[in-house]
Amino acid sequence: MSFNTFGHLFRVTTWGESHGPALGATVDGCPPGVPITEEALQVWLDKRKPGQNKFTTQRREPDAVEILSGVFEGQSTGSPIQLMIRNADQRSKDYGDIAEKFRPGHADITYWQKYGIRDYRGGGRSSARETAARVAAGGVARAALGALVPDLRITGYMTQMGPHGIDRARFDWEQIDQNPFWTPDAAAAEDWAAYLDGLRKAGSSVGAVIEVTARGVPVGLGAPIYAKLDTDLAAAMMSINAVKAVEIGEGMAAASLTGEANADEIFMGGDGPEYSSNHAGGILGGISTGQDVVVRFAVKPTSSILTTRQTITKSGAPAEIITKGRHDPCVGIRAVPVAEAMMACVLLDHLLLHRGQVGDGPRGAIG
Amino acid sequence: MSFNTFGHLFRVTTWGESHGPALGATVDGCPPGVPITEEALQVWLDKRKPGQNKFTTQRREPDAVEILSGVFEGQSTGSPIQLMIRNADQRSKDYGDIAEKFRPGHADITYWQKYGIRDYRGGGRSSARETAARVAAGGVARAALGALVPDLRITGYMTQMGPHGIDRARFDWEQIDQNPFWTPDAAAAEDWAAYLDGLRKAGSSVGAVIEVTARGVPVGLGAPIYAKLDTDLAAAMMSINAVKAVEIGEGMAAASLTGEANADEIFMGGDGPEYSSNHAGGILGGISTGQDVVVRFAVKPTSSILTTRQTITKSGAPAEIITKGRHDPCVGIRAVPVAEAMMACVLLDHLLLHRGQVGDGPRGAIG
Amino acid sequence: MSFNTFGHLFRVTTWGESHGPALGATVDGCPPGVPITEEALQVWLDKRKPGQNKFTTQRREPDAVEILSGVFEGQSTGSPIQLMIRNADQRSKDYGDIAEKFRPGHADITYWQKYGIRDYRGGGRSSARETAARVAAGGVARAALGALVPDLRITGYMTQMGPHGIDRARFDWEQIDQNPFWTPDAAAAEDWAAYLDGLRKAGSSVGAVIEVTARGVPVGLGAPIYAKLDTDLAAAMMSINAVKAVEIGEGMAAASLTGEANADEIFMGGDGPEYSSNHAGGILGGISTGQDVVVRFAVKPTSSILTTRQTITKSGAPAEIITKGRHDPCVGIRAVPVAEAMMACVLLDHLLLHRGQVGDGPRGAIG
Amino acid sequence: MSFNTFGHLFRVTTWGESHGPALGATVDGCPPGVPITEEALQVWLDKRKPGQNKFTTQRREPDAVEILSGVFEGQSTGSPIQLMIRNADQRSKDYGDIAEKFRPGHADITYWQKYGIRDYRGGGRSSARETAARVAAGGVARAALGALVPDLRITGYMTQMGPHGIDRARFDWEQIDQNPFWTPDAAAAEDWAAYLDGLRKAGSSVGAVIEVTARGVPVGLGAPIYAKLDTDLAAAMMSINAVKAVEIGEGMAAASLTGEANADEIFMGGDGPEYSSNHAGGILGGISTGQDVVVRFAVKPTSSILTTRQTITKSGAPAEIITKGRHDPCVGIRAVPVAEAMMACVLLDHLLLHRGQVGDGPRGAIG
Repeated sequence: MSFNTFGHLFRVTTWGESHGPALGATVDGCPPGVPITEEALQVWLDKRKPGQNKFTTQRREPDAVEILSGVFEGQSTGSPIQLMIRNADQRSKDYGDIAEKFRPGHADITYWQKYGIRDYRGGGRSSARETAARVAAGGVARAALGALVPDLRITGYMTQMGPHGIDRARFDWEQIDQNPFWTPDAAAAEDWAAYLDGLRKAGSSVGAVIEVTARGVPVGLGAPIYAKLDTDLAAAMMSINAVKAVEIGEGMAAASLTGEANADEIFMGGDGPEYSSNHAGGILGGISTGQDVVVRFAVKPTSSILTTRQTITKSGAPAEIITKGRHDPCVGIRAVPVAEAMMACVLLDHLLLHRGQVGDGPRGAIG
Repeated sequence: MSFNTFGHLFRVTTWGESHGPALGATVDGCPPGVPITEEALQVWLDKRKPGQNKFTTQRREPDAVEILSGVFEGQSTGSPIQLMIRNADQRSKDYGDIAEKFRPGHADITYWQKYGIRDYRGGGRSSARETAARVAAGGVARAALGALVPDLRITGYMTQMGPHGIDRARFDWEQIDQNPFWTPDAAAAEDWAAYLDGLRKAGSSVGAVIEVTARGVPVGLGAPIYAKLDTDLAAAMMSINAVKAVEIGEGMAAASLTGEANADEIFMGGDGPEYSSNHAGGILGGISTGQDVVVRFAVKPTSSILTTRQTITKSGAPAEIITKGRHDPCVGIRAVPVAEAMMACVLLDHLLLHRGQVGDGPRGAIG
Repeated sequence: MSFNTFGHLFRVTTWGESHGPALGATVDGCPPGVPITEEALQVWLDKRKPGQNKFTTQRREPDAVEILSGVFEGQSTGSPIQLMIRNADQRSKDYGDIAEKFRPGHADITYWQKYGIRDYRGGGRSSARETAARVAAGGVARAALGALVPDLRITGYMTQMGPHGIDRARFDWEQIDQNPFWTPDAAAAEDWAAYLDGLRKAGSSVGAVIEVTARGVPVGLGAPIYAKLDTDLAAAMMSINAVKAVEIGEGMAAASLTGEANADEIFMGGDGPEYSSNHAGGILGGISTGQDVVVRFAVKPTSSILTTRQTITKSGAPAEIITKGRHDPCVGIRAVPVAEAMMACVLLDHLLLHRGQVGDGPRGAIG
Repeated sequence: MSFNTFGHLFRVTTWGESHGPALGATVDGCPPGVPITEEALQVWLDKRKPGQNKFTTQRREPDAVEILSGVFEGQSTGSPIQLMIRNADQRSKDYGDIAEKFRPGHADITYWQKYGIRDYRGGGRSSARETAARVAAGGVARAALGALVPDLRITGYMTQMGPHGIDRARFDWEQIDQNPFWTPDAAAAEDWAAYLDGLRKAGSSVGAVIEVTARGVPVGLGAPIYAKLDTDLAAAMMSINAVKAVEIGEGMAAASLTGEANADEIFMGGDGPEYSSNHAGGILGGISTGQDVVVRFAVKPTSSILTTRQTITKSGAPAEIITKGRHDPCVGIRAVPVAEAMMACVLLDHLLLHRGQVGDGPRGAIG
């Protein structure tokens, strides 16, 4: 309910700043008896970790997660799980020269105006480094989902870099882990590598579109009216740094369609209702249909570029700014594991909500 | 926190079904001393009211709002404000023939599967009729904002109908109230009238894009990390029936831009910081900048069309369905006042949150 | 989370003032499929209804409850249930002479100071009339509990009137419904009748102690640390008008005991663990043990008496005040059904929470 | 809203177990610009720290608090403040012999039954060690209150040990810090020392009554109906380990009074309204009057005693249990700083809520 917490029953409170001693997540509401280890969580953090190739920031962080509470003898106890990640590479001297200037496109100016405090160390709380804590919490959510819904699979991937989209005809789930962009289109990955290398050398940056698909989602998740599954997914994705738009299923393109073109007709399959298509993105009336849940979002280009731009100082004087140091030419890349984590948190949360209000399983049988 | 409530401090709980005796909103957290009358709320409800022209459903509802509590001698008391709207035109016989079939694209099937209850009367709780309650609550929010931020203006309008977008060069605030589509482009309004008339006669439907702009928003609204202003706006808009995507500022288009193209440079103006552009949509790091707050969303075409489609019955048998009766060829039209109401609720909520956590006004001065 | 809502998953928002057109409760989170009728709810309201004998206020209110939403064909749908009670006997002229004076012991002065609004009509929102809405909501909770935990019984009763306590040796569950004080001690009921009649004629008033026992509570309800079952019961009871203290089990008397005297030893019975005694009041570590849950609370004497007292007016001038009109000599009597309703709401809420976080039934078997 | 979080706008989430690596509090919602240092927080932790005299457990814990986030250059930033306390003395071998038995009066059995996990290390999450985190969070609340309401003073003290109450005629604020029991009655302190020494040597324990008074509370704090100031204080105190009852002002004794005896008459003083007495405990209708806010609560005797008692094992077999090791003969002593911390958290929370909903200061003037 307050400002740094996400979720209804599975509640994640993240804390920490880019250049403080540590950051982390307080995870409240994990069901008891879920197997959880630091090693299993670390897998997800390693996926997000910076500095893994030339396309992401060269800040070196081991991002090693410590479990400080809520897990006993390898199992969740039902008590809050504290996940802490020490900040290692806090070279705050990099940022000293911008302590008085506001970086355009960053939250420097609004945080200052709102709070009257200028944490110039790499953006402080507004840094995307906060998302490391989300990924750790998402690991807990995945572990719980693994116990409760073994067939659920959550996969994020990039579908567009700058103006260059993938070719859906080449979509291959197996390719996603095989390239630095988490894209299912191997040919696009090659093109993007050259494109992004050019941008990187020019000190520029570019936006991206990320899609997350959850397969094997149980029917019935979502709590109308104001905690619809799509509503909560929209909030989850929009809360990620630099995200400017969220789409469910057909997304913005739905505006251009007629009712005939947009219809997902219903048939009876062997295991229950099936649909002729999935324009809806797996959600009707805010409740999951059992189809793939498909969310897509746009990440803006990072504002930290090597081109000089105009800004002002705290005293209101005009100034020029240029962002040196280590930065990501396409921050969308590292948003992929973050978005997967948010999807996991939302789905677990709604699974628990559903179980609480309605009991296990769907209530209305068909056939 | 539960499912039918929206907001943090200004909390709106809507209740009621399409064909029950009444629906309404329980509005908790309105500051005391705000002038509120049924007449002033009715203005907003009349804007949303169905049956006002041939482009919206012919269901006849006076949508007369009654204030049952929380207002004394014309002023809010600080106690919850109960707003009730009686349903008048509940012709539920229209819907009797679909009691056993699930309408594709509607929430019939997921509500049944989740709750095991089939309220076949026009969609029950999942009907867009619920949004009348939002508009009433939004009227309260507007009244409170009027007292606290007199210069604030919230305006919604349609920017695209089906594949046909407006020409931004013809954007005219004065035109918005002059056509049935709430569009700022008078030429588009003419084209759309012919286009939609054709669809209506063919029993078809089409999607739309709606934009809402808030002008005069104070600097500093928004509560990072998980109640950012854009996060809460995304949730607010996505919770509206048939919405499939939400954009802030540049939206999906931000993905295609470079950092140079997307930058909103900062200058010092007479009243404080000014920006060279507004790609950000008035929000940085989840906090308002003082620029226009710009939100855009896509509404899918209504699934109720006169073309036969395939579906199944509760017993799993295949069936054909065709939706007769009164329906909207472009439900996006009536989403305009709803979206304005949601914007008003979110802004008031964040104004109160800001005042609570930080005190009145921004804390960090510039210049 | 806001101010007029109670509960975590089963959320009750009450609204309305003593002398407005209506009051009610918006009940969100009732599981679907629960049989609910106005007639069944009315039974509980009739129990609380004023004017039933000479010991309660002579205000005449039918307190007829209307269900406006959330129930279809006799069953809850999972959507919010709106319960409305029209105010019939709003003789606000009775209160006109106190519009400028603050009644000592009432909330008149603090509501004025906080909100700057003086709703002089019988206390407005601070009137105990608000508890009618709680009783209606409690009826919904009872219906849901009846479906989920058929053996659960919730019973409230008076154990002390003024300085006169019951004799526990005469405790008889069957007597509770047989006297106007809901006391299990028939002899006390006779004594109290004479005692209270004297106070009534003298225009005086007196406090009382109420106890509520829930029998058949499942093991495992309660959510440590800050939604412990006893914590939530304490909040629930303290929120009732005029309550000044809440006890669980041994209550204040626990302070005087030694560890040996206070111990509830554990034995193995046929159906699971049994206890040698119930000093704990059925709750250990915030979680129900399966024993009777026992809550007790003190209600202060109503401040509305016929003796002149000193006060001030809104302009700060000294004044004398004497409260004429219809009032209760022992408001504790009518707190009994209210407290039962709150117990029902808390237990249902925790049943849903438990089911959500842990699943059905206790997880750790014994024996 | 979830289970390990307390507060509405000033939200404290505690985490950690008795014998895990660390415990702490995630404090969300502290206003920005509040001076906060580890040294200042440590003062409060030292007050609660075990092993300071022969009357409290001999567990040796430095209870050194680390600030991991939310404070920059000595000031709160508005971001969440993570407070961590490492557990030093985790002699879990002490507890090994009770891993299979349930200690009567402890939460061992209910945690097992609810969660199916037995954290036998000193009670795990249910240990009173959790309260160290509350004291740390309370230190933050005190710092913020110090900035916002400089004249506010919060003082806790013991008014009864076992059956032995203080003599209110000897009440002396200055004595409270002068004895190991935090009692304002120096003569009682002497008597209690002998009494408790006897109990300690006998391996017994005893209950206590603690009172907390807040002086200088602004008028108008409290959010009716379900976040009344007394409601939230009742929840806050009842959530403390071993608390069995909470009283406001006159408390249980109010039941015995007549309306005449219980009346707090109102007069006009130099600075506003004054009252002839404070039976109400500084709260009317859930809102502070400006008088002292007085809360009192009973702590049961610790169940860990040297007398053998009957219990059962996880397999349901009968067993005898005797608690060796380090324990408190009167846990009420250490509840004093915890209760002060809870009072501070509640008052700050309501100050922020009031400011959010109503704005600074009371609205309705008198005189």
